[in-house]
Formats: sequence, C-alpha cells, structure tokens
Amino acid sequence: MSRYKAIIAYDGTKYAGFQVQKNADNTLQGTIEAVLKRISGGKAITIHPSGRTDAGVHAKGQVIHFDFPYERAEEKLRFALDTQTPDDINFLAIEKVADDFHSRYLSKEKTYYYYVTTGPIRDPFKRLYSSHCHFEIDIDRIRQGATFIEGEHDFSVFCATGSAVQDKNRHVYEVRVEKISETELCFVFRGNGFLYKMVRMLVGTLLKIGGGNLPVNAIELALKNQDKKMTGPTANPEGLFLMNVSYD
Amino acid sequence: MSRYKAIIAYDGTKYAGFQVQKNADNTLQGTIEAVLKRISGGKAITIHPSGRTDAGVHAKGQVIHFDFPYERAEEKLRFALDTQTPDDINFLAIEKVADDFHSRYLSKEKTYYYYVTTGPIRDPFKRLYSSHCHFEIDIDRIRQGATFIEGEHDFSVFCATGSAVQDKNRHVYEVRVEKISETELCFVFRGNGFLYKMVRMLVGTLLKIGGGNLPVNAIELALKNQDKKMTGPTANPEGLFLMNVSYD
Repeated sequence: MSRYKAIIAYDGTKYAGFQVQKNADNTLQGTIEAVLKRISGGKAITIHPSGRTDAGVHAKGQVIHFDFPYERAEEKLRFALDTQTPDDINFLAIEKVADDFHSRYLSKEKTYYYYVTTGPIRDPFKRLYSSHCHFEIDIDRIRQGATFIEGEHDFSVFCATGSAVQDKNRHVYEVRVEKISETELCFVFRGNGFLYKMVRMLVGTLLKIGGGNLPVNAIELALKNQDKKMTGPTANPEGLFLMNVSYD
Repeated sequence: MSRYKAIIAYDGTKYAGFQVQKNADNTLQGTIEAVLKRISGGKAITIHPSGRTDAGVHAKGQVIHFDFPYERAEEKLRFALDTQTPDDINFLAIEKVADDFHSRYLSKEKTYYYYVTTGPIRDPFKRLYSSHCHFEIDIDRIRQGATFIEGEHDFSVFCATGSAVQDKNRHVYEVRVEKISETELCFVFRGNGFLYKMVRMLVGTLLKIGGGNLPVNAIELALKNQDKKMTGPTANPEGLFLMNVSYD
C-alpha cells in the first residue's frame, strides 16, 4: 500500500459536486474512483479531497490523497489517471507521500478565485466560468467592504446550513479585488480555511455593498452581531475556482 | 417590412452547426428563428448569416440579416433577442439597414481566429475553445509556412468536398501566428472570404509543418500543384472563432 497526493484541475460544470451522493451519479469522486478501480485491477480505492466543492464549482489546484495497493512510478500513475479520466478532469501532478499525509487535516492555506462579469451583455464564453452581475457596482465600495473580512473571526453568519463543522473561527489572510477588464472582476480569497459556501456568501455580500444596497461596513456589522440582515445572497457556483491548497 | 442587420456571438459547443438541417434539431438558425417567430407574433422569419459555421465552431462577430414584419426600435429588438435566446447566444448589436443589404453577398472581409494549446497536459477550461496539439511544434517553421498563404490564390486544394461554390479564388490579406502563453497559440486569418473548412485545413497543414512532417513550403507546393499530399488534416472545429465580418 502506498499513499499518493495528487493536484487536480476540473471543470465542475457537469458534475453534481465532488462527493459521492445518493441520487446523483455524476460526481467528481465517483468518476475518479471508477478510474482508480480500473487501473488497480479492480480494487475499490477511496479518494480524500482537501475539501468538497459544490455542484458547478471549478478547481485549478484541488489536492486529493488516496492509498494505492501497489507502488507505482509517479509520472506513470499521473499519466494513466490524466488520460483515463474525462477531458474535464486533469491530473496536474502526483507524488508519493508519507502514510500519515492527509489532504484535509494537514492543509494550512487555501486560495479561491471568484470571477464576476458586469455590463448589459453577458459574454457567452464566460457564462460557465463567472457569475454575471446585472446591476452597476462601485469597485471602491467593494474594496472598502472587503477590508472587514481580513483577520481571524467567527464566520458563523457566513456559513450555510448543512455544515457539521463545530469551530467556525477562520483566519482570512487576504482579500483582493482585481479589475481584469472593463467588464470583469476577480475576487481573491486566501486563508487558513473556509466554511461551507463562505466564499460565495462573502461575494454575494460584497456585490450588494458595491451596488449600494448594504452599507460599506456591512461585513463588520454582520460579523460583530452575527446579523444575517447585513449579508447578501450566496453567489452562483460557476464563478468559483479553488486555486491552491498549501501544506507544511 | 424592415430589414435588420445583427452582430451576434455564440458558443457553438452544443449546436449541430448554423444552418437548419434534417436530422438535427439544435441549430443556431433554428434556435434564433424560433425566437423571432415568438416576438413577431407568430410570423416565420428567415435569418441569413454572412456564412455558415460548422458544428462546434464559435463566433464573436458573426453577422446576420433578416426581415421583420414591423419596424422596431433597434435597442428594444436587440434586447428582446439577446434575452430570449439561450445563454450561449448573444445579440451584441442590431441596426436597421437598407432593404437591399445582404450579409453574405455584400461582405468584404472576414477575420477568423484559431486557438491551439500545446504541452503534455490539456487545460480543462480551454478544451471547448481550442484544439490541442500533442506533438512538439516549431513556431518559426509555422510562421515561415504561413507566408505562402497570403495573396490571391486558387484555394481548391484547401476546400472540403461538399461545397457548391464555383470560384475558388480567394484573397488572404494576412496570416499571423501569435504566442499567447507558453502553451497557447492563436492563428489569425484575414481575407476577402474563405472556402468550406479552408481555415481548419490551413491550420492542420501549418501544425504538420510545425511538427516537421511537411516541408516549410508545403502550402506553396499544395497551391501550385493542387497537391493534397502537401496538406494536413482538417483541424478540429472547437478552436475556430469567426471574429469579424466587414462591409463597405
């Protein structure tokens, strides 16, 4: 038995999320595990991601680990997984790791990008990879509003129901809002971890601040008073990319 | 009756090409004409593109014209068509034109882009919008090979069977090969018109020249002797974008 860590990218458009579920046969976990079973000679192998991603969410640097019954050359294993998974899943890198490596428990830092397009006409080539904002937004208000996210806080008010996590304190190291073009923004979030739907709820709130429908310090108030009224809707999944997961 | 010219963009991924066909119910023409019928109160309206695009081919600047039974404010008509067509079709601009305007017969110049990705790992986010080249290519050889395309030539050898066009002389004003990143090229073709599958056949030939499997002057020889052996395969549709159509 050998443990492997893999860095993978995927277009989440057609998947019902990462984790195997009842009533959904097209998940990333199910798809990857089916290939692992085939190339291991029929052994059932479970993969463990650094965190689940929801239906429609993408990744350019998700990390998984799994135990393979035999030791295999890293590049041969990467190539087999990359070519036998569908075109919308890539195995970017693979390495043999210690038997006690764990993609979720040992992750130290994660980076997410969230893309938003604006303007009256939605670009058909970005519709699967960004969320569209129909109203006018003020990027200065968004940047001011985002400063209240940085630091260590109890983010319970930005955690969707359905999460089993007890400790809802997270440390967000950086939030940056970059203007990519006249009609495209990228929100960058870097922190020690993020709660269920936290990034999408923060983006939805920042857009409402940018549109003038919440005060600039809405996130400060939401965190201080755990006040749901100071938060916006959960932004759509298709704008979200898990970019990087770091380990010691 | 008022004639309108529209500039449209579309993601061709899920369409069986532009033109209405037997045995294919999902065409761009059929989809757009269904919306025109709805917003005209049930009148059948035919649209005329500057040229058909094949299944999987995209457009950022296709031009169509059609006759609408009533005169309508341009922006209102554009907005109705943009919002009532699916998300993968956009109406970028619309204007009322003279009754003798014709999107195909009066077009003076067209520009196509063709995107190619290279390297061992194919980017899942570009798979629908570029063609992947698995072998190593020499961009200098491609650029040298492309110089033989420019000018006025009989391009019969670069025309797929199934075309009813008689005159196969075309004037290509410019071919440019741009390196967008370490793993992405863009081929730019600008000319007074292009034959059926001509751009994709030229790209397939240039890639074979770049890989060293055809001589640098293959296109010169192919054109001079109408020699099919000096041409490569037809490149995949998903890399091709119709970018612009110009009129006097």
